[in-house]
Amino acid sequence: MASRNRVSCGLDIEFTEDLEESIENSSRNGYDFICANVVRQGCTPFETANLCNKLGGVTDTSFLFNSQEWASLVVGKLSYFPDLTSVVTEKRICAEEAVKQELHFVAFLSLPAIIVEIKSKNCSNIARMINTFLYEGHHNVHIWVKVPLHSRNCEEDTWHWWNKFRTLCSHHSRIGLALELTADLPSQLERWQGEPIRVVYIPTSVFLMNQKGFPVLSRAHQQFVKNLMKLNCQIVLSGPNLNNAEGILVYHQYLDHLFQGAQNLGEYEKFSKGYEDHLQAPLQPLMDNLESSTYEIFERDPIKYKKYEEAVYRCLLDQIPDSAKEQQTAVIMVLGAGRGPLVRMSLRGAKRAQRKVRLYAVEKNRNAAVLLQHLCTTEWKDYDVTVVSSDMRFWKAPELADIVVSELLGSLGDNELSPECLDGANRFLKPDAVSIPQSYTSYISPISSHKLYNEIKGVMGLDKNKTPEAAFETLYVVRIHNYHELTEPVPLFTFNHPNWDLDSQNPKPEFHADVSAEVWDKKFSKKDVKDKEDMETNGKTEVNQIQDSQHNHIDPTKANNQIKSTPTMPTNSHNTRYQQFSCTIPFDTMLHGFGGYFRCALYKDVEISIEPKTHSPGMFSWFPIFVPLMNPIPLTEGCTLQTDFWRCSNGKKVWYEWCVTSPQASQIHNPNGRSYTIGL
Amino acid sequence: MASRNRVSCGLDIEFTEDLEESIENSSRNGYDFICANVVRQGCTPFETANLCNKLGGVTDTSFLFNSQEWASLVVGKLSYFPDLTSVVTEKRICAEEAVKQELHFVAFLSLPAIIVEIKSKNCSNIARMINTFLYEGHHNVHIWVKVPLHSRNCEEDTWHWWNKFRTLCSHHSRIGLALELTADLPSQLERWQGEPIRVVYIPTSVFLMNQKGFPVLSRAHQQFVKNLMKLNCQIVLSGPNLNNAEGILVYHQYLDHLFQGAQNLGEYEKFSKGYEDHLQAPLQPLMDNLESSTYEIFERDPIKYKKYEEAVYRCLLDQIPDSAKEQQTAVIMVLGAGRGPLVRMSLRGAKRAQRKVRLYAVEKNRNAAVLLQHLCTTEWKDYDVTVVSSDMRFWKAPELADIVVSELLGSLGDNELSPECLDGANRFLKPDAVSIPQSYTSYISPISSHKLYNEIKGVMGLDKNKTPEAAFETLYVVRIHNYHELTEPVPLFTFNHPNWDLDSQNPKPEFHADVSAEVWDKKFSKKDVKDKEDMETNGKTEVNQIQDSQHNHIDPTKANNQIKSTPTMPTNSHNTRYQQFSCTIPFDTMLHGFGGYFRCALYKDVEISIEPKTHSPGMFSWFPIFVPLMNPIPLTEGCTLQTDFWRCSNGKKVWYEWCVTSPQASQIHNPNGRSYTIGL
Repeated sequence: MASRNRVSCGLDIEFTEDLEESIENSSRNGYDFICANVVRQGCTPFETANLCNKLGGVTDTSFLFNSQEWASLVVGKLSYFPDLTSVVTEKRICAEEAVKQELHFVAFLSLPAIIVEIKSKNCSNIARMINTFLYEGHHNVHIWVKVPLHSRNCEEDTWHWWNKFRTLCSHHSRIGLALELTADLPSQLERWQGEPIRVVYIPTSVFLMNQKGFPVLSRAHQQFVKNLMKLNCQIVLSGPNLNNAEGILVYHQYLDHLFQGAQNLGEYEKFSKGYEDHLQAPLQPLMDNLESSTYEIFERDPIKYKKYEEAVYRCLLDQIPDSAKEQQTAVIMVLGAGRGPLVRMSLRGAKRAQRKVRLYAVEKNRNAAVLLQHLCTTEWKDYDVTVVSSDMRFWKAPELADIVVSELLGSLGDNELSPECLDGANRFLKPDAVSIPQSYTSYISPISSHKLYNEIKGVMGLDKNKTPEAAFETLYVVRIHNYHELTEPVPLFTFNHPNWDLDSQNPKPEFHADVSAEVWDKKFSKKDVKDKEDMETNGKTEVNQIQDSQHNHIDPTKANNQIKSTPTMPTNSHNTRYQQFSCTIPFDTMLHGFGGYFRCALYKDVEISIEPKTHSPGMFSWFPIFVPLMNPIPLTEGCTLQTDFWRCSNGKKVWYEWCVTSPQASQIHNPNGRSYTIGL
Repeated sequence: MASRNRVSCGLDIEFTEDLEESIENSSRNGYDFICANVVRQGCTPFETANLCNKLGGVTDTSFLFNSQEWASLVVGKLSYFPDLTSVVTEKRICAEEAVKQELHFVAFLSLPAIIVEIKSKNCSNIARMINTFLYEGHHNVHIWVKVPLHSRNCEEDTWHWWNKFRTLCSHHSRIGLALELTADLPSQLERWQGEPIRVVYIPTSVFLMNQKGFPVLSRAHQQFVKNLMKLNCQIVLSGPNLNNAEGILVYHQYLDHLFQGAQNLGEYEKFSKGYEDHLQAPLQPLMDNLESSTYEIFERDPIKYKKYEEAVYRCLLDQIPDSAKEQQTAVIMVLGAGRGPLVRMSLRGAKRAQRKVRLYAVEKNRNAAVLLQHLCTTEWKDYDVTVVSSDMRFWKAPELADIVVSELLGSLGDNELSPECLDGANRFLKPDAVSIPQSYTSYISPISSHKLYNEIKGVMGLDKNKTPEAAFETLYVVRIHNYHELTEPVPLFTFNHPNWDLDSQNPKPEFHADVSAEVWDKKFSKKDVKDKEDMETNGKTEVNQIQDSQHNHIDPTKANNQIKSTPTMPTNSHNTRYQQFSCTIPFDTMLHGFGGYFRCALYKDVEISIEPKTHSPGMFSWFPIFVPLMNPIPLTEGCTLQTDFWRCSNGKKVWYEWCVTSPQASQIHNPNGRSYTIGL
């Protein structure tokens, strides 16, 4: 998907006496390639004896080109043979033989693609021939199935022609669409956004003339074409030049003008350029340590950290009344401090709020902790910041927190195990402590995307340690692009923090009933915090200040009665979820899976969201999740789609299972986490 | 599927104080096993703390058994937890925990199976738990999903409950049905015949009392139960003893009586006992040489060869009028003579018809030809029989035939390449020659069979030379047994012989236009046939009489203008076929594939058939073909099922492709013969 700076546009050749001249002519007018028949005009379909006379393209100049030229300048067009569906065997065999000849000739010439026109839903025989062609030989020819947007001759929905064709050919990755614009636009235009449109055929007859006599498209056509250009579609102009004065050049100029208009990208689109529909395994920051470069990318987000600053600011104002701001010090613990952005934002928030804070930067990645320690002695030397190199779930905190700040969310909210991590922090929270974020909810929406389905088919079996099906039982982080959302996202799983409920299911904690925040504030008021000035004058890295997780792991024989030190996740069943949801599907379509998003309340109405309706503008830290289905499920207009999602855990790992139960059941995906789990 | 000589029947235990006593009691009354809960009565579902008090089966005697006893005497019953679908998270988690405990306890005890009752279509959560259970640990517990034949509380079709459950669990092979008989029988009883029913639950309340006061089933119930017994179902009697006088013994006696009645098998059933639903790769007799033992089995068929004798007899009577029977000698060529049964039948037919024949036994399997030669000198010493060791397609015949007799049919008729073989024989036919068989037609019917689908899943990936999907793109010969035919078979492809048409498509033959049979008769009348008496007196094996195919291969440089010696299959396109067929489905069901059969006219109305409606009684040489579908397709009552079948050829091999195009499209199976071909 190399980005272009001008429209890629071809010219459909109905008939020419001289192929070379046609190409030169179209090139002079700005066109990049031509679409032409590979068989001479007027040839009868089944001239085995005269193969040489028949094949060879539209003119005798065909053989002037070298492979490179053929591959870049000419797209073939397959002749149309209505006899392919004839019940008269001889006629059918004759047509099949002719199709074979043309296909093999296209492969011989190494054309990049051949356009196969479909004129009705009765397309199984041509689909079979194309499918066979794709499996025979070693060529790499792409198939562009030409379908009109709107059927002129019948009331049939042409999407069904295409859907049948590609399903018969099992969504083959070399099959794409050549969608022909029609003067009438059907109502369900967006549906095509999920299809692998390679080119948009625009007949000159669809153009209107503007006041100056130049060809333009109607506003609706313009918008549709621009949307498709964003999907990297090429254009093919077809039909006679209806603008004799200026020639076909002006069509190209107009189309390039549209193309330039479609290049107006927002921040998010710019950031994600090149990542479109590219599958990524979700991060497992709990099991794996992130690299500095990964932190660096996330830190560039222009929105996320501003929101965190705002949340800390608002929270501190609420927690410490103005009257107490000189006496009280809020204890803030940043859980998963990484390279320090949340520490920085917390300090900024505190400064704005004019509240005193004592800050602990807890980070399990020991490499990142080294960097944090360096920041303590430089950027944060005037603040009370303690770096703790420990997993928050096992850290023996020296005091209780007023505020814990974390950024542990995955694209689906809970999928990087934020709930489990923050549960582990319950032990060192004051009873009225606030967690930033306070809550998050995953959202899910049914999606049609030939492209994503195919991308996953493409990675099937690549991981030899897993079954081939595992590819369809994995969640992917992906900048979903060539897709169609069937309904708006609906809420899936919600988690609230701090989750005191968990303590009623797991062994009960005692401290928050009988120990007030003040007691703990007092108890730790004399805590011996290293003198930062000493550090500076000494000019040494004060490694002792990094509390080593090795020496702070919980010793169960010395259980502290007041600071609960037992991690509270013996079963983790309180973090399991089960949700059914159903929705009505507004049109015939094909379901390939689900888009996954989150919406998160950092503090009260300070939110961050990647759920499309409420997406925080310009925030690019998270691409959506794609949850695939093993087999695409056909859905008909008005049917009820019902889906079940589970979040499961066995205390050692967390995984999701999912299935469709209506209008027809799918299998349950990822049973027992056999293909994909997230390690605790 | 070891065959039993008495019914296998268990007893459902509602409640017992003493498990050991219950088992002994049921055994005394003839029952083989009991079905009992694994959890004490009255236990609340979530007593983690009291696991020991809760588990352990219905009584304290549970632990008296050893593993062998547990595995053979007791089937577990899972408690029913309506809370599994509760929207109150705590209730749901509680129920899930209880289910897990019971399942794990069953696995711990090595029970053979556990019965899981479904009471509504809302079964996705229990399905997920069962599915997870099947993928965790190393146990081998089977799941018997208990579903009533007819729902008492609602109008729902209980088949849908089952269908949803097994689809969610991807047709897992360890999931079977415990189908509960109800007093009311639904109309679509046959539909259950395609399901993996392990046990039939029969409540005592379903029994009627006969005049002598003994429990019996209604005639309709009897028939249904007998049909299921033929599928090797076990029985479980449930409910209170309603026949106090005699005890539960009499139920068992009655059920065994039904069982004995179900053992009345026809010849075909007897022959195929043990082969039910067992997948076999179709023979490739053209590519491979059959073994003597394979011929031997086929020769045992009590029907097929009688039909051939009759066909030859009738054909000779038609070909040679009574008046000419002394002067004329019919030339019969047996093509693919094997170990000689068709030679034998031809000679018998000729004897009955009192016609003179000269017979060529053509056989490409040189090993079989040795045996044929031996028969020439013994059994057939008084007849004019010449053994030819050659492939009929390349044999240079010394004269032209009046009759060719062959048995080259596969289960689907043409699938062992009879059309191609007999095309190759065209060269040595008189213009009015008759082929026995004269024609054959394949038949196909849509089939629902959980069992066959699972058998194929079971062989997926076993052939490491092929992709896993190849298993679903292969045709299987199989004694289809646990299945349900959705509609009657319809004709698919027809082949007629001799096929003179082929010569108009391939290079034209000339001889049959200008050479009459008489000319050729005369021409070869002086042919030097070996004197059989010489052979006998010499007492030697006359190896020269076996025309060696090595020396009879066609020499294209010496093309005989009159006896066409060029094999007529340069493209073989005349033997390709394409057929769409559609039918209306009378009820909701699941399509797993197609049954394939043939019907063959040997001569005029002398037929052999394995098409169910017209099956030649007692003929067992062919089991049906099963044509699988990669993904089961749900069909709803009244929908139109449309299917496309192709017979393809590239001149080197033949293969089939197939797909469903309505109500929803499947992929095209076996594109370009990638998974399964038949070599020419």
